Amino acid sequence: MKTYNVAVVGATGLVGREMIKILEERDFPVKKLSLLASDKSAGTKILFKSEEIKVESFHKDFFNQVDIALFSAGGDVSKKLVPIAVSKGTVVIDNSSYFRMHNDVPLVIPEVNPEKIFEHDGIIANPNCSTIQMIAALAPIHKISKITKIVVSTYQAVSGSGKAAIDELYNQTKEVLEEKKISRVVYPHQIAFNAIPHIDTFESNGFTKEEMKMVHETRKILNDENIKISPTCVRIPAFFGHAESVYFELEKRLELSKIKEIIRNEPNLKLIDDIFNNKYPLQIMTEYYDEVMVGRVRKDLHNENGYNIWVVANNLRKGAALNAVQIAEKLIQRDI
Amino acid sequence: MKTYNVAVVGATGLVGREMIKILEERDFPVKKLSLLASDKSAGTKILFKSEEIKVESFHKDFFNQVDIALFSAGGDVSKKLVPIAVSKGTVVIDNSSYFRMHNDVPLVIPEVNPEKIFEHDGIIANPNCSTIQMIAALAPIHKISKITKIVVSTYQAVSGSGKAAIDELYNQTKEVLEEKKISRVVYPHQIAFNAIPHIDTFESNGFTKEEMKMVHETRKILNDENIKISPTCVRIPAFFGHAESVYFELEKRLELSKIKEIIRNEPNLKLIDDIFNNKYPLQIMTEYYDEVMVGRVRKDLHNENGYNIWVVANNLRKGAALNAVQIAEKLIQRDI
Repeated sequence: MKTYNVAVVGATGLVGREMIKILEERDFPVKKLSLLASDKSAGTKILFKSEEIKVESFHKDFFNQVDIALFSAGGDVSKKLVPIAVSKGTVVIDNSSYFRMHNDVPLVIPEVNPEKIFEHDGIIANPNCSTIQMIAALAPIHKISKITKIVVSTYQAVSGSGKAAIDELYNQTKEVLEEKKISRVVYPHQIAFNAIPHIDTFESNGFTKEEMKMVHETRKILNDENIKISPTCVRIPAFFGHAESVYFELEKRLELSKIKEIIRNEPNLKLIDDIFNNKYPLQIMTEYYDEVMVGRVRKDLHNENGYNIWVVANNLRKGAALNAVQIAEKLIQRDI
Repeated sequence: MKTYNVAVVGATGLVGREMIKILEERDFPVKKLSLLASDKSAGTKILFKSEEIKVESFHKDFFNQVDIALFSAGGDVSKKLVPIAVSKGTVVIDNSSYFRMHNDVPLVIPEVNPEKIFEHDGIIANPNCSTIQMIAALAPIHKISKITKIVVSTYQAVSGSGKAAIDELYNQTKEVLEEKKISRVVYPHQIAFNAIPHIDTFESNGFTKEEMKMVHETRKILNDENIKISPTCVRIPAFFGHAESVYFELEKRLELSKIKEIIRNEPNLKLIDDIFNNKYPLQIMTEYYDEVMVGRVRKDLHNENGYNIWVVANNLRKGAALNAVQIAEKLIQRDI
């Protein structure tokens, strides 16, 4: 079996560490794993298949002989280092938003638009976490009857903002319980026992960048510029897992049983929908499931073609690291 | 000035205690205040205007000479005791859901449909918390241009489930931080650091009763059976304050500036909408504001008549106790 030299860029971050874990869990055919992080984190040792790998800081030969690089170090690092990697012949799977909307960069959820992977010109972009789970759930329905409209409100975990945000929720929670003054670094407001309707920066149209990602990325992935999407992205005091309340309308009506069947038959989706036994997807379940969980599937009360679902997924895994590794797995099915 | 004998039924509950506080804060013309609770809570003493009032358990003379009774003791108590109170000539303002949809019972938000107050036949119903804040925000817009469709997702605090739920969130939070086993009494799943898309019981259409309340009560309050409402009600780990992500469509387009002006001019609403300075309503603000707070007011990206808002209010006050007292205040403007 052919093996590959793989690099993880941003190796010490929450998503980077998850990428390394997933490469091992899924037994990706790694010949050599190289790890890159900021100067501050370089020197850290990370275990991969019982071997300690030392995290490097960037040097001009880092990408020599690297076949596949998984990037998750933010847009600025991708902007600077991805072109260098590509110039050395490395195929980059980039989790930052930097290249996602570039015309010649495929934006891929492997179970939705795998064919795009092979149209890459050195870079394949990983969509935003909140887009991935929504589109993973909706795409198989969209294939049968076109989705015309989506209204989505998110319930996003703090781990989406990195390790410092996990610490912030933890510390603020303790401070509230101990009736101490709240300390604040990552978010503009207290996140403990509060919801903040503000993720990423605001644009002049009143939507946040996170919300606009859901609009633009959905249209690009589904290759359908006509879908109307109304997103509201909200951070809530959960550590892990994003939840989404999704209302959608179809071009032609499908029976509820048909929609459930479509979800049930998708290997990357998990239908958890037994309301009378209190079974529906929950963020605390994302520790156990890699599938995108879908529940509370119901028909709208008024609109013949309207439906509601509740979608939950692990934002660090399917929302980021796992989706990237799944792209890599498809990629190597053909010789890269 | 005329004064009234007032009773609070469910006086020791979260909403009952808030009712007593608000009667004092707003200097409601109380001649005598009587307090009623379950046998278990009877005997408790509650301070009202520097006077200790002893909570009674029900006896057949309790409602004699009571002019106005504020009920917040759940549907079963209302079912049993409201008719007794009414038979004694008491006007009941009932916070339970029991009478809300009865044809001859007005369902009132005082700033929205005050005229209904005087059509009462002994009972005036207080709407559900999640309905009150949504309709308080939307009704003034609806008056200018009819609302045709609403898609709403809620972020509701545990205080809506009573004192035991506040304890549950507090205890579970400590248990998570201390890595102990989670204890569970009120909710079917862990609420600490998790969102539960399940409030009240499920109906056969897949919606919960809480969600159906938003549908039925909205239509009754606005006296408009044509409004299409798609609700998803979710409990999140906040102690106080409900937040709602509301998408709505109007019959005829209004400028965004007009919508903001309408909100700004309503004395019971507070427009908090300065996104570039990180200003939008938050649940932690509900301690300070009795107004329904509205922010993130924006035009839909695709639908000419579509809009999004973020609505936050104090669920125990405007969502329950304050609205009930405001009804009483209107009521006594005419001789009851």
